[in-house]
Amino acid sequence: MIRTIFTSFLILFSFAVNAQTTIIGFTEENTKKQQQLESAFEAKLNAENLDKWMQRMSAQPHWVGTEFGRENAEWIQKQFKSWGYDTKIETYQVLFPFPKVRIVELTAPTTYKAKLTAVPVEGDEYTAQGDALLPSYNAFSTDGDVEAELVFVNYGIPADYEELEKLGISVKGKIVIAKYAGSWRGIKPKLAAENGAIGCLIYSDPQDDGYVRGDVYPKGAFKNKTGVQRGSVMDMPTYPGDVLTPGYGATKDAKRLNRKDAPTITKIPVLPISYEDAQPLLEALEGPIAPKAWKGGLPITYHIGPGPAKVHLKLEFDWQLKPAHNVIATMKGTDFPDQWVMRGNHHDAWVHGANDPISGMVALMEEARAVGELAKKGNKPKRTLVYCAWDAEEPGLIGSTEWVEDHKKELQQKVVAYINTDGNGRGFLGAGGSHSLQAMVAEVAGTVKDPQRGVSIKERRSAVNLVNGGKEAFSLYALGSGSDYTPFIQHAGIAALNLGFGGENAGGEYHTIYDTYPHYKRFKDPEFAYGVALANTAGRISLRLANADILPFEFKQWHSTVSTYLEEVMKSCDTMRKEVEKHNNMVDKNVFELAADPRKPFKNPLRKEAVPYLDFTPLQNAMASLKSSVTAFSELDIADLSVTKRRDLNKQLMLAEQVLTSESGLPRRSWYKHQIYAPGFYTGYGVKTLPGVREAIEQKNWNEAEEQIKKLAGTLNDFNAYIQGMTTM
Amino acid sequence: MIRTIFTSFLILFSFAVNAQTTIIGFTEENTKKQQQLESAFEAKLNAENLDKWMQRMSAQPHWVGTEFGRENAEWIQKQFKSWGYDTKIETYQVLFPFPKVRIVELTAPTTYKAKLTAVPVEGDEYTAQGDALLPSYNAFSTDGDVEAELVFVNYGIPADYEELEKLGISVKGKIVIAKYAGSWRGIKPKLAAENGAIGCLIYSDPQDDGYVRGDVYPKGAFKNKTGVQRGSVMDMPTYPGDVLTPGYGATKDAKRLNRKDAPTITKIPVLPISYEDAQPLLEALEGPIAPKAWKGGLPITYHIGPGPAKVHLKLEFDWQLKPAHNVIATMKGTDFPDQWVMRGNHHDAWVHGANDPISGMVALMEEARAVGELAKKGNKPKRTLVYCAWDAEEPGLIGSTEWVEDHKKELQQKVVAYINTDGNGRGFLGAGGSHSLQAMVAEVAGTVKDPQRGVSIKERRSAVNLVNGGKEAFSLYALGSGSDYTPFIQHAGIAALNLGFGGENAGGEYHTIYDTYPHYKRFKDPEFAYGVALANTAGRISLRLANADILPFEFKQWHSTVSTYLEEVMKSCDTMRKEVEKHNNMVDKNVFELAADPRKPFKNPLRKEAVPYLDFTPLQNAMASLKSSVTAFSELDIADLSVTKRRDLNKQLMLAEQVLTSESGLPRRSWYKHQIYAPGFYTGYGVKTLPGVREAIEQKNWNEAEEQIKKLAGTLNDFNAYIQGMTTM
Repeated sequence: MIRTIFTSFLILFSFAVNAQTTIIGFTEENTKKQQQLESAFEAKLNAENLDKWMQRMSAQPHWVGTEFGRENAEWIQKQFKSWGYDTKIETYQVLFPFPKVRIVELTAPTTYKAKLTAVPVEGDEYTAQGDALLPSYNAFSTDGDVEAELVFVNYGIPADYEELEKLGISVKGKIVIAKYAGSWRGIKPKLAAENGAIGCLIYSDPQDDGYVRGDVYPKGAFKNKTGVQRGSVMDMPTYPGDVLTPGYGATKDAKRLNRKDAPTITKIPVLPISYEDAQPLLEALEGPIAPKAWKGGLPITYHIGPGPAKVHLKLEFDWQLKPAHNVIATMKGTDFPDQWVMRGNHHDAWVHGANDPISGMVALMEEARAVGELAKKGNKPKRTLVYCAWDAEEPGLIGSTEWVEDHKKELQQKVVAYINTDGNGRGFLGAGGSHSLQAMVAEVAGTVKDPQRGVSIKERRSAVNLVNGGKEAFSLYALGSGSDYTPFIQHAGIAALNLGFGGENAGGEYHTIYDTYPHYKRFKDPEFAYGVALANTAGRISLRLANADILPFEFKQWHSTVSTYLEEVMKSCDTMRKEVEKHNNMVDKNVFELAADPRKPFKNPLRKEAVPYLDFTPLQNAMASLKSSVTAFSELDIADLSVTKRRDLNKQLMLAEQVLTSESGLPRRSWYKHQIYAPGFYTGYGVKTLPGVREAIEQKNWNEAEEQIKKLAGTLNDFNAYIQGMTTM
Repeated sequence: MIRTIFTSFLILFSFAVNAQTTIIGFTEENTKKQQQLESAFEAKLNAENLDKWMQRMSAQPHWVGTEFGRENAEWIQKQFKSWGYDTKIETYQVLFPFPKVRIVELTAPTTYKAKLTAVPVEGDEYTAQGDALLPSYNAFSTDGDVEAELVFVNYGIPADYEELEKLGISVKGKIVIAKYAGSWRGIKPKLAAENGAIGCLIYSDPQDDGYVRGDVYPKGAFKNKTGVQRGSVMDMPTYPGDVLTPGYGATKDAKRLNRKDAPTITKIPVLPISYEDAQPLLEALEGPIAPKAWKGGLPITYHIGPGPAKVHLKLEFDWQLKPAHNVIATMKGTDFPDQWVMRGNHHDAWVHGANDPISGMVALMEEARAVGELAKKGNKPKRTLVYCAWDAEEPGLIGSTEWVEDHKKELQQKVVAYINTDGNGRGFLGAGGSHSLQAMVAEVAGTVKDPQRGVSIKERRSAVNLVNGGKEAFSLYALGSGSDYTPFIQHAGIAALNLGFGGENAGGEYHTIYDTYPHYKRFKDPEFAYGVALANTAGRISLRLANADILPFEFKQWHSTVSTYLEEVMKSCDTMRKEVEKHNNMVDKNVFELAADPRKPFKNPLRKEAVPYLDFTPLQNAMASLKSSVTAFSELDIADLSVTKRRDLNKQLMLAEQVLTSESGLPRRSWYKHQIYAPGFYTGYGVKTLPGVREAIEQKNWNEAEEQIKKLAGTLNDFNAYIQGMTTM
């Protein structure tokens, strides 16, 4: 009986699923059992439950600290209990600002007072709940009262400030207005403040999720002129979670920072507004016409300013500690109770949150219900399954972060992997996470049927990749941030996944009063077919991790993926060098000035510092060694391993991801420990792979780049030794 | 005394202009004389004349057949006469439609009657001339009265109909609405009719030349909501000029086609409208959301239809013969009176035409005036200079085409080259034409100062090329169509150039009532500095051609340019083959269907016919032979040539371009004789180089591609023999 553990995914490509004799991490015998279990699991999934529960949980707004949020948590706990889980609610006391004063007004050259209110729409009674709806604001904006000339800064990302520099326009002492999109929203006030601005407005341009994209609500799914995207602007790339308790749990008696010292509250006041409120402000701007790529979908000529538009922005918040209720439901494993497979989804929303997060929450619950039913019939998992419903995700991943910080030591010993979900839609599987899990996820994706097209969700994903010019092979995207996997993978070094369906459910309801049950039913996943597909996918993954003979981590795909990251980084350095050379050559020839229109604003660019050649060989050598090691490891055969050896190997495997972290973390943000994946310091949610090295290069900090190369090479060499250790143990 | 004729342009790159001892085509002695002459010429140019004359000629609308147009022609004649030219007005009787009835109305699901009127604006009295302004229409639309559902077709170009095909939407029996831009306007009704539409509306979307681009008139230069672009939709890619007299002059007694048989009048009625009039029509469309790239700048969701919007379009024209007055002014050459250097610009406009064409016309006149003054002082040209002011260019290059057709034999014997100008603006030299003239034009461009930056116009052009990612080296673009050079180069095989400045004078006034003197003064070339630069550039080129010892044609740059065309064509064929293979592979895997959203319209694409390998070796061999020949020719030395030999060589050189034509012309449009350059059959103005071969490939007509390869190889071999003949004569 020859079976290899980690190369069986290759078989998948040559044989039909039914012909497969083993799945990754399972003996032939246990493969059959597991497949039967998963079929039984799938048979229990019922879309009607998702529909019913969504109506229940999204009936009223339920942001952290609300009565309805607490009721939801208790109701969720009750459900889990009824399905046979041990349940508890773990509550943290977290700082949460509620808006008391919100004023945005144009004071010159004409006047306009922003309405700051979204209108209820016909056919959606949820939007008519009036004062029960959370006013639109950006959580963790500082208080402020400022008045200044306005400057339009496009998306307000680094490239936009470079463009302003070229035009000789400064935002110092000004209020900026930036479009939503292009980056995570918190980057906008952060960069604005770094550039000297004293206030920041963010608006949803119709080009990004309004009428330019499609018909607006209620006719269509997109944002109407009054819709406003709420959201956190906490400086999460520095650290997420409670702003007053960095790195430790916000328990009742925890030592807290003084709010004035909390580094992740914005430096300047920031408020989101609708495009109805933005238009009069933008129309009042003069100065240079915005570059082509900056223009939005409003029927105006976009000028940059500064002024003559002058804006008064006044914000005051009620800063209070609020209880964040995490629901934790545990199904103890029969064989390895101290090996935990964790699942999570948040339950708090900005308003009703039918899509975000309830659509993911109901899928998680249906998965847990089916697992519970199987357990009642004797099919208990070998490892412990832990289902979590997080609170306070919206204001900054607070519930999950505090819980992970609070339990970090135990989690780092016990958790096999954390599988996250969040809002879910219709279309294609999007799966991100630790690349040591890629082979297993691909295998599972090959077994789950797409509800609309009948083929596997893996085939459908491949099809859309090909049509969009991408690759056919299944792959996990790298995790940046934006949901509750962050504290697990980025901080605790726990292997993580993030799963969801989408691509056929575009809309503009995100974080507005329009993310309601009627909107979801019309435009997202009307039959909850993809909700069931998500439960099916995440459930199979959880059950495989829970029951595997050898934990299904695979490192050859990990290696080839990380190799592409290294190539990217090296190439980006070469590209940057060539661009700087070209630029300097053009500066020397005075080409920029000669090409410039004398009637338009222009600042002659300066020469740039040359990009040195960096020594990447420590990384190349580490990756070369790893190639041999992961190949040797892949040739291990379950059949050759004794029960004791399997147990020992599993203990090593579940901790492997932690070897990729460093206790000292990333420069200037030590909370982020992972050396392969991190959210970008200037992208927010967007991932930066090999972040220490990549960001040092992007920020042209060559000394730091060299240090980070050495540090990362050390991490990779440790990982190499770890894998060699597992192979020869 | 070692001087080569044709390689002296190389010297230009290594020495400063003053250090240059010869210019192309001149002996050392005559180089000095010519440089002195050109300096004297430049010194006489006076911007005030351009300003004054523009006010005179753009005071009232002056389309072909108007009283003011006739007055302009006579006034121009009078000026030339006063400067010492022999002048005449040559008049042709050409068909010209004037709009009698124009109705566009939305008849369902709501109603709207299009206003079809541009509003006068404050500060521009010319826009308030009311009934004197030509109503907005497309000349050579057929009469028609149709009512049907509307379909939005983006720009209405071939790629858009491919997209509609993918969505399963037909325009058969419908009225289409297309945005201006993306192609020459006449392509839109042509393709619409080919696809079965029964009517066509064209509107100016604010994204293309309205508020999205910049502030609208009168605040800024761009098109306000009522502006409408007039323009011809005659099928000029088949043949330009009078629709009733294809290939011969529209003299008073010429035999004329019956209007019903004129192939270049559109098959369906077509009318241009403003974005104010377009918006209610577009808003009334339902059906699929337009693809991202189709969306314009109106504050609406762009749907494609068909319907429920229903449109009634009724057009009736007064079809009459009108006199087109070409002004021809001749300054006889002292040494070679039967060798003509020709300059031309049209004088007719759609409305006032301050920019188009008067800005170019006044530059031509100032050039001619200065040349006349020099002649009066004894500096007469050695060859004959002919200055032309064409009528009826706007409706379809009619004045120039009829004149060329009428005098074709004589012109083919006598014309050295034709140098065209048209509307002129501020910024960078744009020069297109026969690549045998590229080296000479580059040399001239190196001697003309840019009015704003002080460097040569060649350096400034290089600078903007570099900033836009292009090449530093000076090059001529290839001529398609769109102005009066077309009958000369495309039909008669006369070497031609088209010159103008632009890039810093964007606006939306083109062919509207807003192309006025005040608009020009505020937004185009306020001091007429670039008008003078144009006169300077075109004048120097004309004087060099007129006085050269050996006509300054150079074939090494011609060869390298045409070689890149051949490479492009071969590469496009390979690219097309790979794309078809990829497409068919995806069809075989059913990837398109699997990737499609079942809730959106989708038509599963079919397999495409495989692209064969074409035998390009006849062209490669011809170009290889030509490489040797042009090199040998470039090594000829003026000093080695007797006066008789020079004379004989010049006679050959001036006819060389004709060797690149074929009497049988291009497939399905024999009027177009040139084998290297033609306007695209489906682009209109946009050039297709090596058109016979390139368009056969684009249209996947493989037999024709093979025939055209042979034909073009024959032409190139003839040209090779001709150049060898000139070298060894």
